Parts: sequence; structure tokens; C-alpha cells
Amino acid sequence: MAVNKERIFNRLTELGKIGKKEDGIYCLALSKEENEAHALVRKYMEEAGLKVRVDAAGNLIGRKEGKDPQSSVVMTGSHIDTVYGGGIFDGRLGVIGGIEALQAMNEEGIETLHPIEVIAYRDEEGTRFVGSYSGAAHMVGKPPEGIMEHVDKDGISVTEALRECGIDPDHVTDAALPEGYAKAHLELHIEQGAVLESKGLSVGIVTGICAQIRGEYVIKGQSAHAGTTPLPLRKDALCAASEVILAIEDETKKSEGCVATVGRIVAEPGGVNVVPGTAKFSIDIRHQIPEVRDQLLKRINERVEEICSRRKVTWELNVLSRETTEKPCDPRIQKVIEEACMKEGYPVYKMPSGAGHDSGALIPFCPSGMIFIRSKDGLSHNGNEYSSPEDCEAGVKVLYDSLYQLAEEK
Amino acid sequence: MAVNKERIFNRLTELGKIGKKEDGIYCLALSKEENEAHALVRKYMEEAGLKVRVDAAGNLIGRKEGKDPQSSVVMTGSHIDTVYGGGIFDGRLGVIGGIEALQAMNEEGIETLHPIEVIAYRDEEGTRFVGSYSGAAHMVGKPPEGIMEHVDKDGISVTEALRECGIDPDHVTDAALPEGYAKAHLELHIEQGAVLESKGLSVGIVTGICAQIRGEYVIKGQSAHAGTTPLPLRKDALCAASEVILAIEDETKKSEGCVATVGRIVAEPGGVNVVPGTAKFSIDIRHQIPEVRDQLLKRINERVEEICSRRKVTWELNVLSRETTEKPCDPRIQKVIEEACMKEGYPVYKMPSGAGHDSGALIPFCPSGMIFIRSKDGLSHNGNEYSSPEDCEAGVKVLYDSLYQLAEEK
Repeated sequence: MAVNKERIFNRLTELGKIGKKEDGIYCLALSKEENEAHALVRKYMEEAGLKVRVDAAGNLIGRKEGKDPQSSVVMTGSHIDTVYGGGIFDGRLGVIGGIEALQAMNEEGIETLHPIEVIAYRDEEGTRFVGSYSGAAHMVGKPPEGIMEHVDKDGISVTEALRECGIDPDHVTDAALPEGYAKAHLELHIEQGAVLESKGLSVGIVTGICAQIRGEYVIKGQSAHAGTTPLPLRKDALCAASEVILAIEDETKKSEGCVATVGRIVAEPGGVNVVPGTAKFSIDIRHQIPEVRDQLLKRINERVEEICSRRKVTWELNVLSRETTEKPCDPRIQKVIEEACMKEGYPVYKMPSGAGHDSGALIPFCPSGMIFIRSKDGLSHNGNEYSSPEDCEAGVKVLYDSLYQLAEEK
Repeated sequence: MAVNKERIFNRLTELGKIGKKEDGIYCLALSKEENEAHALVRKYMEEAGLKVRVDAAGNLIGRKEGKDPQSSVVMTGSHIDTVYGGGIFDGRLGVIGGIEALQAMNEEGIETLHPIEVIAYRDEEGTRFVGSYSGAAHMVGKPPEGIMEHVDKDGISVTEALRECGIDPDHVTDAALPEGYAKAHLELHIEQGAVLESKGLSVGIVTGICAQIRGEYVIKGQSAHAGTTPLPLRKDALCAASEVILAIEDETKKSEGCVATVGRIVAEPGGVNVVPGTAKFSIDIRHQIPEVRDQLLKRINERVEEICSRRKVTWELNVLSRETTEKPCDPRIQKVIEEACMKEGYPVYKMPSGAGHDSGALIPFCPSGMIFIRSKDGLSHNGNEYSSPEDCEAGVKVLYDSLYQLAEEK
């Protein structure tokens, strides 16, 4: 196999120079930096011998023709845009890795039955504009509602930003692919967590993308003078919140595959010498099966009720967002990736994706799968995110074999 | 006994009109409102037949002469100033109650061996300027260090504010009383907590004023992606903080007479979808014996060490202030108040003061005692603070008997 790990790493490094600042890369969605990066990726696609086109939503597509040009397409891809101060691997590895797999096949003179396309999707991060995966969502004909009117922090709308990128905002919906266009979609991505590192593994096979609930708990007790109110007379909202946070941790540990996080908290009135009368804190719960996640939330809320009733405080949970659709990776695609891992000598390890990805948009459209590689210290969305050249190569090899298998079989 | 509960309540109500706004009284230290209130209190003192003077620090003193004018003085008093939006009882009851006790004695034609003085101390709250009890502190010759340079939120210094009140800032230290001036000091005050209410009592005898420690705990773990980091791989600073807050509550409940409060907390970086890497929270611990309080803090910190070591996070406690001196009420004075309670038919109930008071400045100067009366719902520093006319009367009766006893005995 002609997969070339230096070429992968050199391209990631070169691409990472665009929008580079001290703390990381600023290559935001629909910015001139993203445009510049897409132009460079177009050059890589051409070097790989791919036929390049740009769709009506600005997604960049490199095609390796199949023996049957009319047959359904095996797609692979990810994104080039970054958060504020991002790293050189997040998203980009999936694009550069896809190009590398096809370039290697071309160098080896390999032809496949089905065409294979590698895509650099626009605007995955949802950092500049609210609403993630909009490039991929346009391609499957399901753009986020009201996306064109969203504005960035400088007041520039998606409509204006598209126009500045040379994309006609009135025709973005033309990007929608016809039903049956894709045979399969594969995405190679860094893990963005520390699970593979903790297990000493290079590669993971994703079983599905987690469905999130986000909300805020509000606990109300009674504020009181810190000096004159003995503990038995208090209704301390922060003590109740502390007990709830530990109950969330406890119930989540008992729920295989679930994660739950309290990332933000405030105690009111907030005086150093005042017993808190109110505590508010966020909750983020994820599991790839929404029902499993909802069962965890139900168990958590039973604990919350018990705690707050015992402490004579009130509580409510304001749900701010709730993903209801399951986003499982296709079992057949998982099997193909599994066989590729075995062929290349990597242990088979399956795991859910806690983060969202372009694949989230593709999963309802066609059979989809994802390949993760190890992230050093689990870091991402950070200028210090790192994956070794060997792990990048491992991911591309598994991608190569999987793409080949899917493109060769009828 | 000629103690007149209507007169007490009418004076408190009339005094409460000065600086009254929708949410409470704004009668801040060394303001024109405090001046106006002192002028009204002066009138009450004169109505009570007292000889009135103002000392060099602006404290207002009404004297009922003794049969031996050269003998040591029995003092009683409290403050008139309020916090932003305070109530009509806090501090004021001690002044109006003291005047009432002496007026009643005068109406009954009672003469005592020792002179009795009732004082309206300036600037107790420490709300407008940093540094509480500065009026009383000047009187005992121990003003807070650097007090004259403190400025309020509008940049007005204590020096300027004194001048605007007609007090010569260059001579405030002349207010210092000579050693041996006072035979005793008694202060009547609302409880500002809900202990007496919870026990169904009108009156409490204060055993001492709590010594405070204030500080901030900083717990550091590792921030991480909320979706991609399974719980066993997390070093969640907020979960550790929650466990610490519950340990503080638990250890404090086991420590008779101690109170401890976490009133303020922040989790960083604070993203809803980010595992907190840092948690910072305040701590306020009080007990009337500093050593008892310090032992509680030691036990808390042993728990903190165990929790943080088990969770693989680091911790530190930054102590911001630490009162080291014990401020006990004099046992002999407590006994006098106890006998007064028994005489008037109120159950004897002893309790520490969790809040600071003018008495905190007087305790090192002469044998001192405090009488508490019941606060409705434990409220204070609030326009809704309330004590019933009957409870006010109860406090004044106990004060009357105690002052008489102390002023009559050699």
C-alpha cells in the first residue's frame, strides 16, 4: 500500500499555517482563511489525480472515477474550518487522509467498481455561526432552519459570508444530492478524547454519534445570614446543588456509555457571608441512544427529588435542547472497518462519539461509519492538539482498506 | 416598671422614616441621614432627661448622673447607621431601648450609685467604608488601621465625610475614653437569625461574639470535552468541590456552636460542554472561640485532602482574613442578665452571636454583655426585618434590670 505518512503530515502542517496565531488556528467557517485553505486542498486533490468540483454550498469534492461511473458513490470527508484557536488535525485529517487514500490507490493503479469522492465540507464547527454541519447539511438537503439569517459576532450574516466566499446564497439548496447518490459515507477523525490513549490503541471504530440533552437546574432554598443561622435552620441551595452534582456523577458512572457534565454553576445572592438561597447549574447528558440517555436523566431526577425534598428546597430543570433522533453508524460499515483493522493489525475497539461530526448529517442519508484515531492527552479545540504521524497513517490505512472494500463490492 | 412599649415602637418607627426608600432604609455611616437621625435621637435623650454630649468621633452620649458622679460608668448602646436598604431595628433598638430604660428610671425617680450612659455609636455597619465599628473603636482608643483614608464608592474619604458631619478629623482620637472609665457595657440587639424564633423565645443571653475566618478554596483538575471524556478519565474540579462543600457541611454539623458557609462558587472555564478544570469557592467559618473554629477548619482540610487526593486534583486554601482574639461576654455580666430574665419571667437561653457588633470593640475595654431579642424569620439587613413590640419591650425590661443591678452595686 502506497499510503505515505510524510505526505499526510506535511500537508496537515502546511494547511495549518493558514490563519495560524500564537494560540492556534483561526480558520473560521466561510472566512477568507477557509477559502484559502480550500484552494490549497484543491491543489492536493489535483496532485492526487482527482477530478475536482465545488457544489452550490461551497463544499469541495474530489472524485476518483469508478469502473461504473453511473453507480452509487462511496463518499469520505470531513471539514477544514476550525474553532477560535483550533488545531491542525480536527476535521482536516479526514480530508487530507481521504485524499491520501485515493492518491495511494491511483499511484498503485487501482481502479474500483464504484466512484469514490473525498469532500471538504464547509462550516462544520458552528463556532462563527450558530448551527453546526451546515455544509454537510446542505449536501443532504436538510440545512438547519433559518441558517441563512444567522449572524456572526460582527453582525455578518451567513448570506453575506457566502457571497464573500463567491458562493451564491440564492442557490445553496442546489447542493442537495439526489436520493441514492451515495453507497456509503466514511469519516476519519481524531477522537478528541483520551479513551484510545488510555487503552494504548491507535484506532477506534465508532458505533454512533451521541444524542445530547442540555438544560439548567434551578434549586431554590432560603438565603440567610452566614453568622447567625445555625446549619439545622438553613435551606442552603448550594449544599443541595452539591449533593445533586455528586448524584449526577454517581448515576452516570452506573450508566454504560453515558456521559453527563455540570460545566457551569452560580450561587445567589453570592455574598461570601450569605447562605445561598438559589443555585443554578448546567447539565449536558449524552448517549448514542436517546432513550438510554433519557433513562439516565429520569434516574438523576429521582435522586434530585429525594435530595431536594429531604433538604426542603425546590427544584426545576429547564431543558434547553434535546436531540431525539438516534445517529447510529451502520453495522455493515462497522464490520467493513473492523475487517480493515484486522487486516492492518490494529485491535478492534468500538466506541461511541461523544462529539458531533459531519457524519451526524450524513447518517440519515446513507449507510455511514467513522474511524477515530488517538488524540494526545485527549486534547482538541486547542492549538496543542496532537496525533502522531504513525496514528495518522494507521487511520488512513484503515480508511483506504474500507473505501476499497465498499467501492469494489456490488 | 415604667418601660413604655408604645414609646419604643413609635420612636423606632419615626427614626425609620429618615432615609427610607422602597426596599428599606439608607442611613449610611457619616451621611447627612445619619446626622439627621442622631439629631432626632438627641431629642429623645433630652426628653428622657439625660445630659447629652457628642464626643470627638461623633458618637452621641446621653448620661443619667449617678449618686457618685466620679464613679465608673455603666454604658449601654448600639448604632443608628444602616446597610443599603436596612431595617428599623438593627442597632437602633439598642439605642432607643437604652434611652427608654433610663427614661423609665427617671420617671420612677430612681437614682443609681453609678452614672449610666447610653451611646449611639457612629459607623457600625462597615457598609459605606471598609472597617466596622469605627465609632466604638475610636471610643476605646483602637481605631481600625488606616481608617481615615478609606473611601466610599463615590471616592469620598472618611476624613472628608467626618468633616461634612461637622466632626474635626484631626481630633477624632480625642474620643478615646480613659482606662477604667467604664464599669460595664451592655448592648441590646435583634438576633438577626432564627434561633430564638425556632425555640419560641423572646430573649437570648449572648455568650460571646464569634471570631471569623474568611478564605477561598481553589481546586484544580483538568478541563476536558464533555462529550468525549468518559467519567473515569475525568479530573472534574466541580465534582471535587461539591464533595468538599458537603464535607464542610458535615463537619460543621458535628461541631457544636460553629457555623460555616460557602456563599460563592465559580467553575472554570465555565462552558456548558466543558468538564470544569478549576473550581473556586468561598469559605466563612465562625465560632466564639478561635481555637474551636480552627479545629473545625483543620478537620475540614483533612477531609479536603482525602477527597482531592482520591480524585487526583490539587487544592489550596487562601485565607483572606482571620480573627484571632476571643471576644467572650463577661460571665458576671451574663449572670446579671440571667437574673434579670428570671425576674421578668423569660426563660434563660444562652447563645453566641454569629454577627459582629459594637460590643466587639467594647469587650476588650470593659466587662461586656449582650441581650438578643427574636427576629421574625431571622431576617435582617432587609427592609422587612421585624421584631414585635412585645419582644422589644421584653429586651428593654431585661436591659433595665441589668443596668440597674450593675449601676447599684459597688
